[in-house]
Amino acid sequence: MQTQYATWDEPLLLESGAVLAPVTLAYETYGTLNAARDNAILLLHALSGDAHAAGTHHPTERKRGWWDAMVGPGRPFDTNCYFIICSNVIGGCQGSTGPGSLNPQTGRPYGTRFPVITIGDMVSAQAHLIERLGITTLYAVAGGSMGGFQALEWATAYPERVRNVVLLATAARSSTQTIAWNSIGRRAIMSDPHWRGGDYYGHAPPIDGLSVARMIGHITYLSEPALEQKFARRLQDTPQVQFTLEREFAIESYLDYQGQNFNERFDANSYLYITKAMDYWDLPGRYGSLEAALRRSTARFLILSFDSDWLYPPSESATIAAALRHTGAEVFYTNLSSSAGHDAFLVDTALQSPMLVDFLAAGNGECK
Amino acid sequence: MQTQYATWDEPLLLESGAVLAPVTLAYETYGTLNAARDNAILLLHALSGDAHAAGTHHPTERKRGWWDAMVGPGRPFDTNCYFIICSNVIGGCQGSTGPGSLNPQTGRPYGTRFPVITIGDMVSAQAHLIERLGITTLYAVAGGSMGGFQALEWATAYPERVRNVVLLATAARSSTQTIAWNSIGRRAIMSDPHWRGGDYYGHAPPIDGLSVARMIGHITYLSEPALEQKFARRLQDTPQVQFTLEREFAIESYLDYQGQNFNERFDANSYLYITKAMDYWDLPGRYGSLEAALRRSTARFLILSFDSDWLYPPSESATIAAALRHTGAEVFYTNLSSSAGHDAFLVDTALQSPMLVDFLAAGNGECK
Repeated sequence: MQTQYATWDEPLLLESGAVLAPVTLAYETYGTLNAARDNAILLLHALSGDAHAAGTHHPTERKRGWWDAMVGPGRPFDTNCYFIICSNVIGGCQGSTGPGSLNPQTGRPYGTRFPVITIGDMVSAQAHLIERLGITTLYAVAGGSMGGFQALEWATAYPERVRNVVLLATAARSSTQTIAWNSIGRRAIMSDPHWRGGDYYGHAPPIDGLSVARMIGHITYLSEPALEQKFARRLQDTPQVQFTLEREFAIESYLDYQGQNFNERFDANSYLYITKAMDYWDLPGRYGSLEAALRRSTARFLILSFDSDWLYPPSESATIAAALRHTGAEVFYTNLSSSAGHDAFLVDTALQSPMLVDFLAAGNGECK
Repeated sequence: MQTQYATWDEPLLLESGAVLAPVTLAYETYGTLNAARDNAILLLHALSGDAHAAGTHHPTERKRGWWDAMVGPGRPFDTNCYFIICSNVIGGCQGSTGPGSLNPQTGRPYGTRFPVITIGDMVSAQAHLIERLGITTLYAVAGGSMGGFQALEWATAYPERVRNVVLLATAARSSTQTIAWNSIGRRAIMSDPHWRGGDYYGHAPPIDGLSVARMIGHITYLSEPALEQKFARRLQDTPQVQFTLEREFAIESYLDYQGQNFNERFDANSYLYITKAMDYWDLPGRYGSLEAALRRSTARFLILSFDSDWLYPPSESATIAAALRHTGAEVFYTNLSSSAGHDAFLVDTALQSPMLVDFLAAGNGECK
């Protein structure tokens, strides 16, 4: 499936009071919308994700979509049955309106003149997209990490439009530690002289700052046992230490590669805007309590956490599940055992698939 | 007690094969060396520590030494009884020879011409200092975090000179995750243009890079519950979020302050050298196994870990204790309950004091 682009001129009113126009959202779809238009599932991506959830764009492309194992005929998000939509977020840099987009008022990229956005704003834009696709009610919304934030936002801000919610490795608010990591990443970017106050488009971008931010992120996505197992204290190129300040350990080369690689596909300003939106994420704060927030929803919930995830630890998911039970909602919560840390929601697809298949099937008598 | 400086011209042969001369070590002493010269305890500091373990240098000084609550008359390191020495490490920037010292070959600061050092090299220099003080055998060596690395090095490299070993919140080797955090900190410093390949002395130093490194460190020193309790999602200056990319949360102001403050007292090059020495720390690797390493020692051991320390988790201490038991050593290991994370060894002094008092007293019939 090729990426599609929906662009509209109606101003998007943001939580800050600012407006954004025009708005473009990049998205992909897989499968077919049924005649009743009630089999759509919206997939919501994490910080560095994009609209390309499954398959390849060219026959020669080696890298498949970020949730490829989960989307397709016979897969948990079964395209024989569901119409799967994956929408990129505003603020991003993968085809949707973000700080690298042209500011219509100046004809130049927004940079930091782009308005600060929230998870709620990302979802407002998606709601507009879903309407444009002629869909009133989503069969399900599903996402991991920041994708889970969006799924919770959908369930509480548009309760009448969501029948099922799938939350993976996520939380109802960003913790102090999450804010701390994001803030250090932003500091690294903003103190890179190539950042130029955000106006680096057409110049060399702040690759060192974005690399450091991404390297920090990668450590938080992996569990300590997984790091030990994968890299231990192995040296990358030499049998013995060389008594140098340069990188020598395999873990250092891995991080360096991740930093470089990220620069090839991600815009530093988008990193600033999206992490800030994550830091603002606070569902209990918005509605007074988590239970008050979740009481707005009438959906069924599947919640999966992973025992080695220390960025969004199981306790965050358990808190959501407990609040949902108090509201009387139908909720299935499982803490899965995986050594993959936070990344488990992306990589341990076989582990989560059975729960997902059962959950989606049980909620949908027409498609089995 | 004022800081003293021992300087000698005999070259210090380093593990790398390089030599360092002259060598200066900054140190402080508290209490009195007895006639038998057998009541000396050497305190070993962590990454950012210095020789100033206790008291103040001026009557008006507000900040006391880094282990002040532990050192003094009637305190666990009882100066009525013991002669306490605290030595700064080579590679540091608190009065000992390090990358900011004058290179005698050029008359200018070493910068990155300073040789890469190891924990073993730090301890070699300390062994020289101890000899100069006329002490053959130390009653005890004690340290937390990197101070524990040095204590283990003392116990295994100079087994005949150490009677008791106190290890707090430490490990027998740097884990993959520790290397990763240190490496990202080094990357932040070395990619700051003010670093200038290490030759920034006399110019503006790489404060942004060192700040980012220190901010990362601070998060790893604190537990997630402690962060939540101390900062939660509190905003620093405003009742509501301001929709800005700038820092707003109290945790962000705290980290920023820690970064700034660190720049006032620490040299970025020392951060590079000392973290590299930590990354090289691998006692099992050096001797074939941890047990083979520890079998060299005849000392008694007190080992304390803290349940919320995720940088040097209790499992690291438990591994050392188990290996010591296999060697038949006298070992007392306790995992203490504290919410302070890795910092507990510095801040939860009341928690650790009873074990320390008992351990030191039981090993020393002459001083009760």
